[in-house]
Amino acid sequence: MGQPPLASRMAQIAPFHVMALLGRARELEAEGRSIVHMEIGEPDFPTPPAVVAAAREALASGQTHYTPALGLPALREAIAEHYQRRYGVDVPARRIVITSGASGALLLALGVVLDRDSEVLMADPGYPCNRHFVRFIEGKVRTIPTGPQEGFQINAALLEQHWREPTRAVMVASPSNPTGTVIPAAEMAAMASLVERRGGVMVVDEIYHELTYAQDSPSALSVSERLFVTNSFSKYFCMTGWRLGWLVVPEPYLEMVERLAQNLFIAPPTLSQHAALAAFLPETIALLEQQKQILAERRDYLVGALRELGFVIPCEPDGAFYLYADCSAFSEDSMQLAQQLLEEAGVAVTPGIDFGDNQGQHYLRFSFTTELSQLREGVARIGNWLQRPA
Amino acid sequence: MGQPPLASRMAQIAPFHVMALLGRARELEAEGRSIVHMEIGEPDFPTPPAVVAAAREALASGQTHYTPALGLPALREAIAEHYQRRYGVDVPARRIVITSGASGALLLALGVVLDRDSEVLMADPGYPCNRHFVRFIEGKVRTIPTGPQEGFQINAALLEQHWREPTRAVMVASPSNPTGTVIPAAEMAAMASLVERRGGVMVVDEIYHELTYAQDSPSALSVSERLFVTNSFSKYFCMTGWRLGWLVVPEPYLEMVERLAQNLFIAPPTLSQHAALAAFLPETIALLEQQKQILAERRDYLVGALRELGFVIPCEPDGAFYLYADCSAFSEDSMQLAQQLLEEAGVAVTPGIDFGDNQGQHYLRFSFTTELSQLREGVARIGNWLQRPA
Repeated sequence: MGQPPLASRMAQIAPFHVMALLGRARELEAEGRSIVHMEIGEPDFPTPPAVVAAAREALASGQTHYTPALGLPALREAIAEHYQRRYGVDVPARRIVITSGASGALLLALGVVLDRDSEVLMADPGYPCNRHFVRFIEGKVRTIPTGPQEGFQINAALLEQHWREPTRAVMVASPSNPTGTVIPAAEMAAMASLVERRGGVMVVDEIYHELTYAQDSPSALSVSERLFVTNSFSKYFCMTGWRLGWLVVPEPYLEMVERLAQNLFIAPPTLSQHAALAAFLPETIALLEQQKQILAERRDYLVGALRELGFVIPCEPDGAFYLYADCSAFSEDSMQLAQQLLEEAGVAVTPGIDFGDNQGQHYLRFSFTTELSQLREGVARIGNWLQRPA
Repeated sequence: MGQPPLASRMAQIAPFHVMALLGRARELEAEGRSIVHMEIGEPDFPTPPAVVAAAREALASGQTHYTPALGLPALREAIAEHYQRRYGVDVPARRIVITSGASGALLLALGVVLDRDSEVLMADPGYPCNRHFVRFIEGKVRTIPTGPQEGFQINAALLEQHWREPTRAVMVASPSNPTGTVIPAAEMAAMASLVERRGGVMVVDEIYHELTYAQDSPSALSVSERLFVTNSFSKYFCMTGWRLGWLVVPEPYLEMVERLAQNLFIAPPTLSQHAALAAFLPETIALLEQQKQILAERRDYLVGALRELGFVIPCEPDGAFYLYADCSAFSEDSMQLAQQLLEEAGVAVTPGIDFGDNQGQHYLRFSFTTELSQLREGVARIGNWLQRPA
């Protein structure tokens, strides 16, 4: 009896440490402990009522069959109008592909671009799944260490320096997870131009883009028509469990993306697509903008409160609902600190090591996806814990 | 300005010819032509009422957040009970992973098993996406030509003959798409045993398994605990647009599959999972069994009627809702024949070339996913067309 074969790629696909912490938090809660959740990457707001109503209507009218592989034409049109209305950018609906979450969008974009051993540049720290998508299809990941100086983002100078012959693509996220920092439009343009000159492509993750607080930052789509943009209904639109995202595709890749989408996914979830048609209604957008305001208030509170405790927050988040805090005043081991905060203080946070190898042991990610009262409680608990007797 | 990079894998990922035919059929219908659809791989029955009701309740109670990556524990339990009740086989819920369609299940199973250039054996003709999943992650496909003699299925003797050093996996489907043929339990056991001895794994597609007409064929899970089984709510349960499937995982792969599922999909669609809990209710199963009976009647009609027209049906389908008919009495080019039937007779069918290179030009796949009256009309149109003046 032979050993069952195991793909070598799995050695390079790390588990999320936060999942173990979340599991432990649920155990503690089952034992009756109170836990403040600042580890979760999911808005605490429910799906907007108009979206839920649209799903109910679609159910009632029997909309349960497959849609076209690239999604409902009406939804692709609605997203095109959204780009026009919100960002003043003209993106034809035929370039917009509906996907099963932003995850589906990333698989499609990388799948049509990368050969085995093609290299992809990305920032460290960064969203861990990006590394794993590349490894999944046998590409190579080359991370670029970024810190507070660059706003934890790649820039054109860093790209220039790290680009090599096998490099085919660059992945950036604006705003970024875990740091919430935004890439300025001029820098995005410089990078896009460099990547195009080198004959590569850029994949821009904008899934937190509708959640920018300070400036109204332009979409990367206004910078170039030759980049892939991934987006999602999960975060701003509060539709995580609906598993719906989209991919904006450069013209030359359209036919290939359709072919791959047919094969990999058949089609995105039908009910979610009908529901998402209501995501762009004025009443929905008004509600979502109010919720964004609530997130902004939480952010302002949390930045100040954590700094008072002695955490260093080198870059205040421009967007998303995360805050990346240097905890090296308290620990050289973010995973151990996260475990202690959970077990001893009853606060769940995400260790920086989930986001890469670059200084991750010195950072914690705090999500502000819970009510202000809970954030206050969490901060109080951390404060008490930090002052515990030695 | 460089040329944008294009992954070489895309040269090996073929479009579905049937999609072009379906598109053309829709055009003709838009022009007012009547088309009988015998090309569609999707049941014409609506999602069962109890499933729709469960979705409505989940919506009302705000079940719109992420679930665990491996799916709702209650749904995994319900599937385990289904295996026990229907097949008398004991599959612990922990080995059952909920996925975004059977497509998600296939990506996970292949992803944890295959290295680049690992070879996968599969029958030709076969479900086209299987080849493309393997190519997507840089594995190699080795098809085994099968014909009426083997019921269009791989068997242990063929496996023995084709297994080579780089072979890591075998994919089979029972019942098969496009032929509807079932692998006998003894043959499945012989293959499983051979594959295990060789240190490979078997991936068994059972998405049409609840739709077997003649005998009550055992699940491959009763044969071995060391194979992957993919299944789906799409076909028997009439839930195509819900994009929900499952994967039964051999014990040694559980942790790896969870890790990959977290990274590739985050979680399957939440509403679909809550809805699917009602798929196993006695009232739902009773309805589905009635519908299966209707499919059986359609099958019996269509086999007889097409044979009368001169099509050769070497293997009557044991399951699924497809019939694979040799059309070489009428044409040496199934694609051209399918086009003619569409344009000149108003009947849409799928050319055999969508399912591989082995004799595909001599076969058509007929789906009986439309009412008997429509099937009769389709047969009459084909009959008239065949008797057209030369």
